Amino acid sequence: MHPITPAMNSFIVRAIGIIHSPYLSRDDAPRQGRFSDALVTLEILPEYCEGLQDVEQEPHHIVLYWLDRSDRNKLKAIPPHTGIEHGVFATRSPDRPNPIGICIVEFVRREGNLLFVRGLDAIDGTPLLDIKPYSADLDWVQQ
Amino acid sequence: MHPITPAMNSFIVRAIGIIHSPYLSRDDAPRQGRFSDALVTLEILPEYCEGLQDVEQEPHHIVLYWLDRSDRNKLKAIPPHTGIEHGVFATRSPDRPNPIGICIVEFVRREGNLLFVRGLDAIDGTPLLDIKPYSADLDWVQQ
Repeated sequence: MHPITPAMNSFIVRAIGIIHSPYLSRDDAPRQGRFSDALVTLEILPEYCEGLQDVEQEPHHIVLYWLDRSDRNKLKAIPPHTGIEHGVFATRSPDRPNPIGICIVEFVRREGNLLFVRGLDAIDGTPLLDIKPYSADLDWVQQ
Repeated sequence: MHPITPAMNSFIVRAIGIIHSPYLSRDDAPRQGRFSDALVTLEILPEYCEGLQDVEQEPHHIVLYWLDRSDRNKLKAIPPHTGIEHGVFATRSPDRPNPIGICIVEFVRREGNLLFVRGLDAIDGTPLLDIKPYSADLDWVQQ
């Protein structure tokens, strides 16, 4: 195996938009988006709107967002449902080295640069990073 | 809705490790990890190893990685299986503004800072960003 190249160790992500949700703080947000029925708005920046063509053809999307109120220095977390400490990579804690949130959302409707979705746990004002069509063929495993 | 704050529009992601795979170029890699049976190694940087505690307890993980050989300026893509152009956010194209790859992988075994997994389509040398436990309760929708 070749050695890790330190020169390639960091990259810049840019918000493609912003998430507007009814959750004003981490305490306010549901533990996972799946447990939320709230209508959430993804506002896409004008320069990225061309990339939205045909998103309305997909019933579900994978949404990636930047958890900008997270602690990136944490390597251990205690999930609320178990109370047992694990390494962050064995948990879904928002406090992790690269705080990228992921949710499978239900597409509701599009109005220009606004996408309305359900099933997203992000706090109001969270930067949006990416939207990908969800595919049960690719993204599902039987457990 | 409050306006987008330009000051908060970019963020730095750091590689937590590197992916070693048999795929040497994009042409070499399977179209999606799900179609690959190859054993792939995730090498975690020493400073992040504490975060791996208990990862071996999860049968499947969501792996996020940085598609460092992508074209970030593309907003349209033509998926190979349809031949029809869509906005990138309606496709799984690696060429997109924030080229973050996502795969659900099968955990095989851990040897110290090395995780062996199956089902990952990343090119050899791809920077690893995050590992999260997959949960059918959270990450699956019926289609």
